[in-house]
Amino acid sequence: MSKNEQDFVKEVTPMEEDFARWYTDIVIKTDMVDYSPVRGCMVIKPYGYGVWEGIVSELDKRLKETGHKNAYFPLLIPESHLSAEKDHFEGFAPEVLWVTQGGSEELTERLFIRPTSETIILPMYSKWVQSYRDLPILINQWCNVVRWEKTTRPFLRTAEFLWQEGHTLHATADEAEEETLKILEIYRQLLEDELAMPVILGVKSDKEKFAGADRTYTMEAMMHDGKALQAGTSHNLGQNFAKMFDVLFLDRDSVRKHAWSTSWAITTRLIGGIIMTHGDNRGLKMPPKVAPIQVVVLPIAFHKEGVLDKAYEIKKELGKKFRVEIDARDEYSAGWKFNYWEMKGVPLRLEVGPRDIEKNQVMVVRRDTLEKFAIPMDGLNERIDELLIDIQKNMFEMALKNREEKIFITNDYDEIINLMKENKGFVKTMWCDDVECENKLKADTSATIRCIPLEQEDLGDTCPMCGKEAKHMIVLGKAY
Amino acid sequence: MSKNEQDFVKEVTPMEEDFARWYTDIVIKTDMVDYSPVRGCMVIKPYGYGVWEGIVSELDKRLKETGHKNAYFPLLIPESHLSAEKDHFEGFAPEVLWVTQGGSEELTERLFIRPTSETIILPMYSKWVQSYRDLPILINQWCNVVRWEKTTRPFLRTAEFLWQEGHTLHATADEAEEETLKILEIYRQLLEDELAMPVILGVKSDKEKFAGADRTYTMEAMMHDGKALQAGTSHNLGQNFAKMFDVLFLDRDSVRKHAWSTSWAITTRLIGGIIMTHGDNRGLKMPPKVAPIQVVVLPIAFHKEGVLDKAYEIKKELGKKFRVEIDARDEYSAGWKFNYWEMKGVPLRLEVGPRDIEKNQVMVVRRDTLEKFAIPMDGLNERIDELLIDIQKNMFEMALKNREEKIFITNDYDEIINLMKENKGFVKTMWCDDVECENKLKADTSATIRCIPLEQEDLGDTCPMCGKEAKHMIVLGKAY
Repeated sequence: MSKNEQDFVKEVTPMEEDFARWYTDIVIKTDMVDYSPVRGCMVIKPYGYGVWEGIVSELDKRLKETGHKNAYFPLLIPESHLSAEKDHFEGFAPEVLWVTQGGSEELTERLFIRPTSETIILPMYSKWVQSYRDLPILINQWCNVVRWEKTTRPFLRTAEFLWQEGHTLHATADEAEEETLKILEIYRQLLEDELAMPVILGVKSDKEKFAGADRTYTMEAMMHDGKALQAGTSHNLGQNFAKMFDVLFLDRDSVRKHAWSTSWAITTRLIGGIIMTHGDNRGLKMPPKVAPIQVVVLPIAFHKEGVLDKAYEIKKELGKKFRVEIDARDEYSAGWKFNYWEMKGVPLRLEVGPRDIEKNQVMVVRRDTLEKFAIPMDGLNERIDELLIDIQKNMFEMALKNREEKIFITNDYDEIINLMKENKGFVKTMWCDDVECENKLKADTSATIRCIPLEQEDLGDTCPMCGKEAKHMIVLGKAY
Repeated sequence: MSKNEQDFVKEVTPMEEDFARWYTDIVIKTDMVDYSPVRGCMVIKPYGYGVWEGIVSELDKRLKETGHKNAYFPLLIPESHLSAEKDHFEGFAPEVLWVTQGGSEELTERLFIRPTSETIILPMYSKWVQSYRDLPILINQWCNVVRWEKTTRPFLRTAEFLWQEGHTLHATADEAEEETLKILEIYRQLLEDELAMPVILGVKSDKEKFAGADRTYTMEAMMHDGKALQAGTSHNLGQNFAKMFDVLFLDRDSVRKHAWSTSWAITTRLIGGIIMTHGDNRGLKMPPKVAPIQVVVLPIAFHKEGVLDKAYEIKKELGKKFRVEIDARDEYSAGWKFNYWEMKGVPLRLEVGPRDIEKNQVMVVRRDTLEKFAIPMDGLNERIDELLIDIQKNMFEMALKNREEKIFITNDYDEIINLMKENKGFVKTMWCDDVECENKLKADTSATIRCIPLEQEDLGDTCPMCGKEAKHMIVLGKAY
């Protein structure tokens, strides 16, 4: 038994008291993650990595179904490539790591570790594309990236993180826009259907968009404390990168043109998003579809004859369809184990004791509602399937309810300031599209325009910051 | 159509003329890989990456079935960690890349990019383990590593490559040895059953073993030209790394002991191994189990009514069970496409023309034997399944036959020198276990002791290099 496990059932900081500490307690105590000796870098432990594997598997399937293929590009990029794209350079140069030595030799050109890969991928595309027949290119990459940030938190913001980055190339501006939106919809499905996280889809303001993009689409999720998590972005890069790296193709009309490109990413920060969307003071709640363990089987009073055998039999049977573990450790009490698996957020706990065996049943506890009830052994697989589907649905609904309760609609600037000061949640309001108003808002509230939602509502005619004519409905929030 | 594709059907260098150029021609022309602007780093294109995805999926399944879990450790390791393990440091220091700057700031401690992760993982394990109850730890990681080597070749030796690295921790020396051998057997299954590559299992000599290991097990494959490829290694690290990083546990007997550790890896070089084991002058031959495309459907004379529809119907039906593509491009002739898909090494080509539709059949061409024959449309799925199984088996047998023809048994040192000079293949002989003889052998022939096979044969009593008493049967070869 490790020290971690001995301390396990101690209380975590209640989320109402200190949400940030609650989060840190939870990720460490549930063995999702550990701090590493490298500044801002984390170790993703098997239980945390298992969630990532679930996300990867679900998204990868969807990307392949829509014609995307995986590839792998170098981790290291020559310095000259970064400086080629000026806007992009200014965005990323302050946080890139530089490799200057190989063995004991100084490198002739410095290399930087990819913070994102446009500057290595687009130059490759320029070699691969000659004609419109070579388009579109629909490539995705699963890899690690590094951004040498000062302030970090496990999963949410780390120097190194894992992600997928898609990079596509198209023959027309319309096709690039279509791709950007198609990916946004795939991301929405991943978030809402698999992670049970409701999202608001929208466009970033010019100030908040990706360095080098024409337009950045985003999905914004609300965490349990009312703060926003940018959960994934899809960028229409226009011809910007193609122009920097000479990505030209001969079009049907025999004219050589710069191609249109897109890029889009989701990262391991989504694991943090799951924790902060669904967790409570008892610990994690894992959405069944990406839960590394969907069902845990606990034999009760397992010195009694037949109990352990029955528990293993159930595990084996359920294991054909679900991700199942059994906890037959004899150094812990049943009560300790209840707490342990609740904190781990396993969607369903099955308890099997001598009386259950007599009655040909198992006791089930749902992690989402904590309801406890008996279900018959006959038809167990089907019943578990139904329950997991119901938990998945219920978790989405609970998250949606929390979000709807914490969205406020107002065009009164004083009220906006107060709502943001008290960290109430999101505010829907109007905006004139002027960056001055955006800066003022940030200075007064430290909140940002999370997005200009795709589904616009007409909440008034004037911008609450300046009183001039409003152009968009926006969503404001404080962000992770 | 890209330039690559236009040039596609041109002859590649025949392998008998120049095997190295044949290899390079093939990997580039089949769009497996491309050179990148970073020295020694490659871009793995979708067709090459697809093979890696097949390998990952098969091995990952086997590792999970045997209780291993995936995790992720940092890419960057502080300098102090490398210098802690002296043997290991000497092995890796000449080829590590150093990160010295973050943004515009000098780092306070230099970081190196992992060439392998013992020096970051073992320090983490020292935090996680207190008692024998915490053991074993069975963790694997899929990631990129970098070794700044001077001479590189796509897949076979590149500065950056992808791999899995397993790192386990055990309470006894026996358990560590058992794990090391268990993994070797899993690797053997992967190579022989999925990649159709026969391997010789053995132990590395002390000179050739992993820096810091007690014992390195290896699997050695023979390429078509008779040279050896070290296809995967499994290291018993004894207590060496545990002592350097204070990985201690309280044992059942209440004594604090250093744990025993293992590490083991296979890499993207296996893709090169597949190419060089199975390929011929027409191009690649993909083993069906990891082929990114198992079946390609070619509509013939597809301006004729019903042909395209039928081809798509077949693709859809087969696509339920196999990885299938259709080639309905109208800018290429049927003959050009035959060459194209043969070069890509797709195991089965299906041709559907008007006459086939009349006869309710398809024409099939096997890539391994180039046999062409008709099979009825009824029961197509089952027949394709049988054919793929047969191709997989036949490819293994052909590779085995090639290897057996190129293994020579002799205890005559002059003959060994001649065989190695003429690049005939492997030599089985005896060895006294003295490093002097090993060095002499290398100086005289540039071959190395590939391994001391687990299955020993008694080929004589004396070492051909020195005439003293022989201790082991060994396999010699020139290596990639």
